[in-house]
Amino acid sequence: MVSPLFSQLQTAREVREAARSGILSGQTSGLAPGYAQANLVILPKELAGDFLLFCQRNPKPCPLLDVTSPGDPIPRRTAPDGDLRSDTPRYRVWKDGELISEPTDLTSLWRDDFVSFVIGCSFTFESALLRAGVPVRHIERGTNVPMYRTDIPCQRAGVFHGQLVVSMRPMRPAEAIRAVQVTSRYPAVHGAPIHLGMPEAIGIYDLSRPDYGDAVPIEPGELPVFWACGVTPQSVLMAARPPLAITHSPGCMFVTDLRDEELAVG
Amino acid sequence: MVSPLFSQLQTAREVREAARSGILSGQTSGLAPGYAQANLVILPKELAGDFLLFCQRNPKPCPLLDVTSPGDPIPRRTAPDGDLRSDTPRYRVWKDGELISEPTDLTSLWRDDFVSFVIGCSFTFESALLRAGVPVRHIERGTNVPMYRTDIPCQRAGVFHGQLVVSMRPMRPAEAIRAVQVTSRYPAVHGAPIHLGMPEAIGIYDLSRPDYGDAVPIEPGELPVFWACGVTPQSVLMAARPPLAITHSPGCMFVTDLRDEELAVG
Repeated sequence: MVSPLFSQLQTAREVREAARSGILSGQTSGLAPGYAQANLVILPKELAGDFLLFCQRNPKPCPLLDVTSPGDPIPRRTAPDGDLRSDTPRYRVWKDGELISEPTDLTSLWRDDFVSFVIGCSFTFESALLRAGVPVRHIERGTNVPMYRTDIPCQRAGVFHGQLVVSMRPMRPAEAIRAVQVTSRYPAVHGAPIHLGMPEAIGIYDLSRPDYGDAVPIEPGELPVFWACGVTPQSVLMAARPPLAITHSPGCMFVTDLRDEELAVG
Repeated sequence: MVSPLFSQLQTAREVREAARSGILSGQTSGLAPGYAQANLVILPKELAGDFLLFCQRNPKPCPLLDVTSPGDPIPRRTAPDGDLRSDTPRYRVWKDGELISEPTDLTSLWRDDFVSFVIGCSFTFESALLRAGVPVRHIERGTNVPMYRTDIPCQRAGVFHGQLVVSMRPMRPAEAIRAVQVTSRYPAVHGAPIHLGMPEAIGIYDLSRPDYGDAVPIEPGELPVFWACGVTPQSVLMAARPPLAITHSPGCMFVTDLRDEELAVG
């Protein structure tokens, strides 16, 4: 899945520098193996308090790895020499809930009241699943993970509310059990599944039509296994239609200096 | 579920003494809370080597807590002041695979070549499930757990071979995920489930007709969750039809000095 052009990007710093210089403006999957990649949400300070509370109340979809001080573009905990204005390959700028541009750099848009949220991403636990011998269908197929809006309400915080979005990976039952064990070690990147089997019990009626990402086939003898998904905060943000919000572009993640294994407990 | 007559038996030693004196000759469920109860298998030395190898090769159904030296009736690791000839409330004596008696004491039958196997029991993880807020249906109903012979072959060792027996507990998906987490901490008492959902995938075609124990209802929205079961070694023993074998009587367990929490990892 890694373009040969970028396969030499072995460290998080190298990926961030490639993004900063404009060489890299696409997906980061497979780059800097072993480094934790992250979802990014940037909001003006007046919305940041509510959003921080939303993340605190909904840690499974919104596991916070880092939150910057207003105006500070440097994620001090996760990438002290990084710059959130330039080091993500591609951003999305939203006005009143509508996507208005996908720039590769935010320097000209940056404001002194921007607060950035660096949020854990499932790439970390997927890499742990593969190491544990649990196959991951969408990785085998080279597609995006299928994601679905559920009927499970998130805990509201101020203007932010909405339904949990989940990612789905089909597995045989013994693999699903192993996946619970493996991903339980990574509470900072969504942790254990929230549901398995019975999609209708969480308001999902057609697995072949995901709300985000690409459908994958479910073979006989497999169960759909559902994890809280980092698209939840984006979905909730869009529903709140804030005057201004910035996120990463799907698949174009911010790569942190944290090692995947640093995020493991036990 | 605990008879008021025996509810004063708070320690493992008290339960063993009550069994030794003949006062207690029935089920041990709920007695000496917090102490690990165990399955018991006693075999002549000539069969014990094969059986030890069987347990080593099949640790999920046969987690060994203690194995005595030939002739020694004292389980030195799990109950140094216990006596395996008398401290289990009721035994079963098998000749050529047929049940011939259910004595409450083995003293008159004891032989210098008997080797005893003290094998972990699911009571330990059930108590952990209840503490974690995961309901356990057969405990709520005061019945025995339903158990099923699967089509999953155990790893053969000498004369011992046969299919895995599993216990089943119906749960809602989120409870099943929590149950995987909780029981994974107890590898010495069967550990994580081996399967969930899809009983036919492991050769179980009618959940309402368990091979051992009592059926329980499965409510809409629940999945059957299956654990390797300590009845497996009994089932395998009976199939091998050894000239002589002794086990505990179902539900009448040997109570060890090990605390349930001593058996937890992590």
